This record gives sequence, C-alpha cells and structure tokens, in this order.
Amino acid sequence: MRKPPDLPKLIAGIRASDRASLAQAITLVESRAPKHRAPARELMQAILPNTGGALRVGLTGTPGAGKSTFIEALGMMLCGRGKKVAVLAVDPSSSRTGGSILGDKTRMEDLARHENAFIRPSPSGNSLGGVAARTREALLLCEAAGYDVILVETVGVGQSETAVRTMTDFFLLLQIAGAGDELQGIKKGVIELADAIVVNKADGDNKMRAKLAKVEYTKVLHFLHPFTPGWKPKALTCSALNCEGIERVWQLIEGFRDQLTESGVFEARRREQNVDWFDSLLQSIVMERYRAEHGQQIQRMATAVKDGQMPVSVALDALLGD
Amino acid sequence: MRKPPDLPKLIAGIRASDRASLAQAITLVESRAPKHRAPARELMQAILPNTGGALRVGLTGTPGAGKSTFIEALGMMLCGRGKKVAVLAVDPSSSRTGGSILGDKTRMEDLARHENAFIRPSPSGNSLGGVAARTREALLLCEAAGYDVILVETVGVGQSETAVRTMTDFFLLLQIAGAGDELQGIKKGVIELADAIVVNKADGDNKMRAKLAKVEYTKVLHFLHPFTPGWKPKALTCSALNCEGIERVWQLIEGFRDQLTESGVFEARRREQNVDWFDSLLQSIVMERYRAEHGQQIQRMATAVKDGQMPVSVALDALLGD
Repeated sequence: MRKPPDLPKLIAGIRASDRASLAQAITLVESRAPKHRAPARELMQAILPNTGGALRVGLTGTPGAGKSTFIEALGMMLCGRGKKVAVLAVDPSSSRTGGSILGDKTRMEDLARHENAFIRPSPSGNSLGGVAARTREALLLCEAAGYDVILVETVGVGQSETAVRTMTDFFLLLQIAGAGDELQGIKKGVIELADAIVVNKADGDNKMRAKLAKVEYTKVLHFLHPFTPGWKPKALTCSALNCEGIERVWQLIEGFRDQLTESGVFEARRREQNVDWFDSLLQSIVMERYRAEHGQQIQRMATAVKDGQMPVSVALDALLGD
Repeated sequence: MRKPPDLPKLIAGIRASDRASLAQAITLVESRAPKHRAPARELMQAILPNTGGALRVGLTGTPGAGKSTFIEALGMMLCGRGKKVAVLAVDPSSSRTGGSILGDKTRMEDLARHENAFIRPSPSGNSLGGVAARTREALLLCEAAGYDVILVETVGVGQSETAVRTMTDFFLLLQIAGAGDELQGIKKGVIELADAIVVNKADGDNKMRAKLAKVEYTKVLHFLHPFTPGWKPKALTCSALNCEGIERVWQLIEGFRDQLTESGVFEARRREQNVDWFDSLLQSIVMERYRAEHGQQIQRMATAVKDGQMPVSVALDALLGD
C-alpha cells in the first residue's frame, strides 16, 4: 500500500461489497505504518454503522480434526444458498510469508473460488492482543461489506481460543474420535468455552467410534457450566469429507441465534464484548508502555521475588514509590 | 496502633511464636496509614527468611456446607497432635465491624481457645487485590511465627477463590449433598481449581445422599483437567460434626504434599505464585493510577464503545494518543 488510500472510494467499495476494496481496507487496518493510522481510524468510524449484521462463528480444534475441510463444507453449503461467507483466522504464531493457516488457499480450493466467499489469512504479529484486535476490525469490515456469516478460525496457540470466543457469537470445537479418554486431546479450559462440540470424520470405519466419542462429549458437557447463559452445549457428529451432518450443525447454530436473540443474551453479549475488548486493549497498551519504560527494573524485582529474596510489597515499593 | 511499632521487639516476638506479637504484626501490615508503610516493609523483609515452612491449604464451599465446623474439626485434630494451626480468611465483602467471616470466633469456640491455634478474620477492604495481598502477608507472618498448617478460607465473593488458590498449595472445595444435579450448587469455574472435593454432613439420614454425591463428583472430576500438574483430584465424604472422615482428608493433603514435593511441582509452583502475585499487583496498581488520572474520559469512551458509536481503535487513540 504505497499510495495514500482514497477513503471515500474505499468506503463506497466496501458498502458495494467489492472484494478488492474489502481486501484493501483490511490491509489498511492491519498496517502498522504510522501514516496509515489516521485513515484506518477514519475508515472504521465510517463503516461502524454498517456493522453487526453477520452471524459470527468461532472455530477451533485439535490439529488433524479437519478444520479446513469442515469450513469448506459448511462454507460451500451456505454459499450455495446465496449466503455470503467470510473466513478469517487468529493465529499469533503465523507470519504472512510462513506456513500461515488459511494462507494456503488451496486448502479450501472450491470455497476460495466461490463468488460469495471471502477468505483472509491471519494477520501477522507476535502479540495475540494485536493479532486479535486486527482480526476483529477485519470482521467488522466484512460485515460492512454485507457478509452474512463470518467464520473465525484459530489453531489454538496460547490463549487464542479465548480471543476468538470474545469476538464471536457461537463457538464450535471440532474434534475427532480419540483413544477412549476423549478429554486427553483437548486443551485445558477450551471445552468450557464451547457452545457445541462436533466430532468430525464420522465416516467409513470411523463412524462408530465417532458416535461413541459424541456420547462421551455429551456427558462431559453435562458436567460443565454452559459458557453462554441459557444455552446447553450440544455434541454432534459429522463427516465434512462427505458433507454429512453439516446441515445439522448449521441448524444448531441458527437455533442458537434465534433462542438467544429472543432472550436478549445475543445483543447483550455483543455489547459486553465491545467493552471487554476496549478494556483489555487499554490495559495491555498501558502496561506495555509501563514495561517499556521500566523493563529492566521490573525484571530484577521479579527475579528477587521469585527466589524469595524480596517480599512482594518491598519490590512494588521500590518500583512504584509512594 | 498509636505508638510507632518497636520493630526489633516485634520481630523477636514473632520468631518466638508469641501470639500477641503476631497479631500486632498483622495489624501493622494491614494498616493503610502512610506512616506504617515503611516499618511494614521492613518487617516483611526481616521475616522473609523464616517463611515457607507451612502447608498452605485453601478452603471454599457453598454457604451452609459447614466450613466453620470443618475447620474446627480439622484444626482441633491437628492441634491435638501438637501442630500449630493458623486460620485466615479472604472476604472482600466483609468489614471488621460487620458480619465478617471468622470475625465471630464463637463459630470456632474450641479452636479459638486452643493454645496451638491462631484465628484471624479477613482484612477489610473493597478491592479483592488489596484484601488478598494483606492476607498473603499475614500468611507469611504466621509461617515466621512457626505455624505448621495455614488454612485460608473464603466465602467465594467475586474471584476470591482464585485469589486463595494462588496463595495456597492445596485447594479444598467443601460441599454438601444437593438435589441430584450436584453441579448446580457450585460456582462456575471453581470446581476446576480444586485438588479435592469433600462432601460434608455425611451423617445420620444424610449419609447415603452424601455418598451418592461423592460418586457424582468423582465423575465430574474425571472429566476435568487437573489444576495441579500430576495430581488427580479426589472426592471424599466426611462428617465434621461427628469428626468422621477428617483424618482421611488430612492424609490426602499430606499425600499431596509428599507426592508434589518429590516431583518438584510443590516448590516450582510456590515460586510461580510469587511472581504471579507480584505481576498482578503491579498491573493493578499501574492500572489504578491510570484510571485515577483518566477515569472520566475512560468512562465516556467505554460507553461510546458499548453502544456501538465509536470503534475501539478510535476510542483508544483518543485516550492514549500516538
């Protein structure tokens, strides 16, 4: 992005659902060049009234669970019904040139070519906060461009599931049948975030094992507090490869939206998510600045505290004074 | 505390396990009077080498689960064996004059009178961070005074279970038999912190229901990731009223300590806890100062963001500049 962006044209392009404009706009808000900050803010302010219209679906799963195949199957089904589908990703470990998730669009060959679909790899960056913030702005831009469903995928590096959970309405955990103790394969704390667990690869010889895994997950979910107030998380099976069970997953997600819209939880949570996002970014920026200023001293105090050589109160006093 | 504290005498008194000195020292570190800060820090620095010797046990439970009776039964058993037992509390909702947990020592009449026991109500204060920090210092003072076991109780206001979990080695969740779906009575996220669930009031007509509840909790625990690496959380029953099963609970806690000491997790976690405590207090003080300076503007921006009138990026720029 060498030339200064022509904002009025860009905004008009987004509102007209022009994919090139959308891609260019995302590049602008992802840019960390100081000269792009003001136009990026102006762009976000301009499109804000056009946002909020999509169903936001988060997706995570263990490697090998078939996330790409699942997204392709679900996306193609929805595109075939005239829905516009955007696919984004949060992967703080990726770099645009490296082996980024979704970077290789050939993983979703059909979907990438469909005129109703828009696929965008994870923004690069090492800080999860920064990557998530930029993905959230990309999500809003997709909404302004008229996308009906936005799938946000994560590979589950660090706390990236939590980040995706906080920017989506529905959170789906994709699994495959394991070796009996199904919990083993799931990262600590992730199952607690899920509105549904979908056991993929329920096909061929694997069908029965997938069904058993589903029963096991149903039991697990029974023992957990639901993440979404008033929603009882469900376990399902599907075969993304054979496009079986995808319809049922989608019905569940639509049912979720309808039920939560009626109860008011849907809108209330989006407002909460806005404030939480603001609060956590504010905190991380304020702390980042503080650490940049006092990094060495903090490190010295933290080491003394860790080794039991200095009480925490003394270390804090030394850092912060009175 | 009107007179300036005689520090050398206070420190000597603590090391000699004098209860009056210990109580006075805790009052000093709990004080928020500016003139007490320097001597409090000096005191903490002086006693730091004498800390670390106790087994730190956190305890929470639904109201009515019989926490006081349980602490009295466990405490009396340990005191009878010559152990020195301190009981502290984290209750951010209490005030010293109000109906503070443990404030009414008559709830643990026998233990309060035992020469091996030391009971201290929750420090007052509205911020959980502040209350927890002062309790943590009181815990270190108790260790310096030679207490072998320190029980830290919480009533579970806000995130107080997490606060107690981060200052203890073992975390015990006390429950009673419920109405079938045992999970209903437990606060979201709390069961995930537990190293053991103890179903109390397993006596009289209630014995069978308590045993069934234990079976149910055992299932729940099977489906959760253990909080402590390498430790499989257990469910037990007891009757604190009849002093039945208390011995078994204590054996479990000692077994926990032995196993984790051998694996190195015990010491490693204490070091981590030190650093986490330092980090979270540093963060809360830095953010408190920032909010004190910019409170009104933050509030205005947060509202605009919540109502969808301002993009988060614009609000942050307005607050933080470039």
